[in-house]
Amino acid sequence: MAEEKEYRDPNRRAVVNRLARASGHLEMVRRMVEEGRSYNDVLIQLAAVKAAINNTGKVILKDYIKQCLEELAEGGDKEALDELNRAVDQFIK
Amino acid sequence: MAEEKEYRDPNRRAVVNRLARASGHLEMVRRMVEEGRSYNDVLIQLAAVKAAINNTGKVILKDYIKQCLEELAEGGDKEALDELNRAVDQFIK
Amino acid sequence: MAEEKEYRDPNRRAVVNRLARASGHLEMVRRMVEEGRSYNDVLIQLAAVKAAINNTGKVILKDYIKQCLEELAEGGDKEALDELNRAVDQFIK
Amino acid sequence: MAEEKEYRDPNRRAVVNRLARASGHLEMVRRMVEEGRSYNDVLIQLAAVKAAINNTGKVILKDYIKQCLEELAEGGDKEALDELNRAVDQFIK
Repeated sequence: MAEEKEYRDPNRRAVVNRLARASGHLEMVRRMVEEGRSYNDVLIQLAAVKAAINNTGKVILKDYIKQCLEELAEGGDKEALDELNRAVDQFIK
Repeated sequence: MAEEKEYRDPNRRAVVNRLARASGHLEMVRRMVEEGRSYNDVLIQLAAVKAAINNTGKVILKDYIKQCLEELAEGGDKEALDELNRAVDQFIK
Repeated sequence: MAEEKEYRDPNRRAVVNRLARASGHLEMVRRMVEEGRSYNDVLIQLAAVKAAINNTGKVILKDYIKQCLEELAEGGDKEALDELNRAVDQFIK
Repeated sequence: MAEEKEYRDPNRRAVVNRLARASGHLEMVRRMVEEGRSYNDVLIQLAAVKAAINNTGKVILKDYIKQCLEELAEGGDKEALDELNRAVDQFIK
């Protein structure tokens, strides 16, 4: 099995910030439920957190594809494609 | 427009705990990216957080439906259905 | 277990038409792949079919909730809620 | 802008068959609604069609990534990555 690719892409810092924002947003939804806010308000915000996480996953997947392409263009091993395909399967539900 | 329904269902405590766990899990993913963990590990965990949030949304939606049914059975106003439908549209993407 | 609710809502005709359109659209995507059209064109159209099916499912779920509320308001059995919850779980992935 | 990649992968025949099956399945759901089958039965089958379409999209995306990697390894143009990223954005909702 190909050696798993470490996330070294320059985009990494932007992804960490996205995840921090999504984490804060999710914390806010938790407090909304605790305070007994309306179902509609809670579900709207929860859908927004879900979308933010989904978009972050797309950024990570694209960084992964980019790193694979670059390494392959420099003669990297083709087995890396199997690992990448595994990630596509894992993330797209 | 019907008055928005406050989330008073006994399930609420369980939902608050679910959201707290999902929040902790998302924090863990943030740290994984910060530490440069592999793309696969990060995407697998992010997919798990997304699923946990989706399942929590389903619990909230079912609590909402239950509360609507109960209030309607006691003569509550039928406009509540419009608010509930809005929640279905908002959450199912 | 509550008796399963037959889909008798007046909306039914509109849902049949939605599904017919989605079916035609999916057929078109199949032909695009057969003709060797570009990956991007195929994936864009496939995402559109997926969205159309998702939206149709939301219409059906809302019809189902409406029928449950109406029957409950006329003294229908409360077990119907379990069947409705099963549908929420089945459809929201 | 990079020239869009035609879907020439040997997998194409398998994808055409998948889409034909999903199309037939969607047709079946349309008839179920027409015949007034239960909401639960209809929603279960519609969720199954949605999953089949999603899985087919993943197969196409992986074929696309594979073709990009192969062409890049033979000196193909790097702009192809932008087109591939557009497909990732389009399909993962």
